[in-house]
Amino acid sequence: MNDFYSLATDSLNEKYQHLSQRYQEFKTKNLKLDMSRGKPSPEQLDLSNGMFESLKSRDYHTTDGNDARNYGGIDGLSELKTILAPYLEVDSKQLIITGNSSLALLHDLIARAFIHGFITSPLPWSKLPVIRFLCPTPGYDRHFSICEYFKIEMIPINLNANGPDMNQVESLVAQDETIKGIICVPKYSNPTGITYSKETVLRLAALNTLAPDFKIFWDNAYAVHHLTKTPDYLANILEATQKAGYPDRVFIFGSTSKISFAGAGIAMIATSEANLNWLKKQLNIQSIGPDKLNQLRHVRFFKDNPIAVHMQKHAELIRPKFETVLATLEQELGSKNIATWTNPNGGYFISLDTLDGCAQKVVQLAKEAGVILTNAGATFPYGKDPRNRNIRIAPTFPPLSELKVAMELLAICIQIVSLEKLLKQ
Amino acid sequence: MNDFYSLATDSLNEKYQHLSQRYQEFKTKNLKLDMSRGKPSPEQLDLSNGMFESLKSRDYHTTDGNDARNYGGIDGLSELKTILAPYLEVDSKQLIITGNSSLALLHDLIARAFIHGFITSPLPWSKLPVIRFLCPTPGYDRHFSICEYFKIEMIPINLNANGPDMNQVESLVAQDETIKGIICVPKYSNPTGITYSKETVLRLAALNTLAPDFKIFWDNAYAVHHLTKTPDYLANILEATQKAGYPDRVFIFGSTSKISFAGAGIAMIATSEANLNWLKKQLNIQSIGPDKLNQLRHVRFFKDNPIAVHMQKHAELIRPKFETVLATLEQELGSKNIATWTNPNGGYFISLDTLDGCAQKVVQLAKEAGVILTNAGATFPYGKDPRNRNIRIAPTFPPLSELKVAMELLAICIQIVSLEKLLKQ
Repeated sequence: MNDFYSLATDSLNEKYQHLSQRYQEFKTKNLKLDMSRGKPSPEQLDLSNGMFESLKSRDYHTTDGNDARNYGGIDGLSELKTILAPYLEVDSKQLIITGNSSLALLHDLIARAFIHGFITSPLPWSKLPVIRFLCPTPGYDRHFSICEYFKIEMIPINLNANGPDMNQVESLVAQDETIKGIICVPKYSNPTGITYSKETVLRLAALNTLAPDFKIFWDNAYAVHHLTKTPDYLANILEATQKAGYPDRVFIFGSTSKISFAGAGIAMIATSEANLNWLKKQLNIQSIGPDKLNQLRHVRFFKDNPIAVHMQKHAELIRPKFETVLATLEQELGSKNIATWTNPNGGYFISLDTLDGCAQKVVQLAKEAGVILTNAGATFPYGKDPRNRNIRIAPTFPPLSELKVAMELLAICIQIVSLEKLLKQ
Repeated sequence: MNDFYSLATDSLNEKYQHLSQRYQEFKTKNLKLDMSRGKPSPEQLDLSNGMFESLKSRDYHTTDGNDARNYGGIDGLSELKTILAPYLEVDSKQLIITGNSSLALLHDLIARAFIHGFITSPLPWSKLPVIRFLCPTPGYDRHFSICEYFKIEMIPINLNANGPDMNQVESLVAQDETIKGIICVPKYSNPTGITYSKETVLRLAALNTLAPDFKIFWDNAYAVHHLTKTPDYLANILEATQKAGYPDRVFIFGSTSKISFAGAGIAMIATSEANLNWLKKQLNIQSIGPDKLNQLRHVRFFKDNPIAVHMQKHAELIRPKFETVLATLEQELGSKNIATWTNPNGGYFISLDTLDGCAQKVVQLAKEAGVILTNAGATFPYGKDPRNRNIRIAPTFPPLSELKVAMELLAICIQIVSLEKLLKQ
């Protein structure tokens, strides 16, 4: 039996000595690995190197004959909409393509709510004493940072295998008019990798909310970022909200940051016609328009490299890394009953739960031996994991060999901290 | 004598008949010219076509060894800062380079003031009942649109040959704490082409304002956009505010929109160290970072094409257009005493004043004959030119031949509307 809970104190102590020694050996290796962010690897970026030459100096006209080097157009090139709309499973008429960052589109949308209010808002949010958002947890730290920036109170909602706990969500929004929104990563969720079930999507779309301007911020960051040949299916929330009678409830976000180049990609937002018109007017005030040359660069590249095929190449590079993480965790921690972890069908992360109260110490120990993980707590609002157990593992960036070493170290740290906990009890 | 005011009614009537006939002849030409915006011409854009090939697929590392295809860095590439800082006459340490639109940087900065307040703000601006800005007029319509969007009350300030009327400015800001800012195009001003004098810059920097968070938004859009060999000189406001004891008062904006490509250029903002740190923190919330590949593309291109030399090539293309406008106006309207216009040393516009009350009708007549000018009134807050006389001429985009025709038509329209006014008196 490997189960730590079934071992006598002597055995636990013996294990602790052995693991401490292994940890010290790792320390002498002077590792320097940063696994804190979900970054594509250089090999993944190489897949898009064709983009450097996809746009030639005589090739800068759009299909409607406009010179993409000059001013004009606020909502993005129609030919790129045609290519990207299927990625978000929307109609190209429901899409605005602008900027390089879906996070910025989300941030700016919330800023617009504070300054002007949405089309269904009785008042700009800045005129209200308090604004609350529901935050499925564990979740994406940058979403929580945006909420903190806008002083939006975050209410954590448990994220289960099928999505947020909908009973909790339904009950809260029905009785609290200050609850104005929910931010979701509905597919291959960051960090747990789950995809919202059809029932969850339909219940979100049909929520009976006290706030007339309750919004769903649908950050579909990993829509086509499959790892297996049996990809998850996500129901179409834009259709669902329209059928449910709340056509202006949802804004869907996406980007090619993890398809083409991270930072030099294309961001997009999909929503109802009324919201699009409202948004276009505001974009027209904010800017003269997006970088159409980078949009055209993507058009030319994706013509020769269809997104689905391109993403299979990404998956072929990423899958072995996920497999290495999972195999190492299984080998080192399997059946020891001190950690659980996810095995997602897509996305960028593996989410690991230690025993309660151990995550911070584990991340600290790993750091002292040269492996930087995302801060423990980062996957929860205000950086506070109430059970101090969640660790986000980002396998994509490091080379396989380094990843294996980092995971061995992580497993040792988890065992050490778990043993310390068990030995104290 | 050509002076319309010295002519008898008969002569005026005769001229009116003749001009009406010429106007009808123009109408039969079915012109279709859009001179409403300050857009670079295709030939100007051609000057930067080297940018399409300036970045190769093995050339994506920054000088500090980072992969510009991946995430990382919020405030722009240091090597591009080194190139662009002299353009704004600031130190590269005073610069943030991000996005493609200086207008968006300005818009977002004001949004930050409403949501958070500046470092010297007692409260976020959204918590105050009224915010007022001083608006030098005639001015840039998109600045006024941003103010309208944020419900900032605009107080027009006369823009003279040396800049805004500083007596008026000093008197207003000293007694009204709701006046929180002034938006300026200090060099080759849009539309009058004047450059603020050194005295104006120093007085702005040293303003004694009742508001503790009064800000100068210094949109230095035409910093290097000279037309002559005797360029205007603009005093350094960042230095001036620091000397005056208001180091955090000014934000300077610039972009390469009219240097490289319009829309696919690089935007930048320069300010004090304290403001930069404040701003970087907020940018870190808003986005994961700018498009570093487009920044690198500019680095590579500007290495072979120094900005000063590159801008001379622009000037050589633009100068004949300004000369054509000026010559045609002089030929058609000179000494008739019904219009005055500017002869700027740089920038993108010629500003023309008709007799009071005539501008709207002139723009309308021109439009009916196929020449679209910027809406009359657009150069004033709320689109209301109190004297209804200012017309903004944007000579850069149309080919020379079309420009000449358009100016002849404009001159005819001005004469017709002036005659109608004189004949009614």
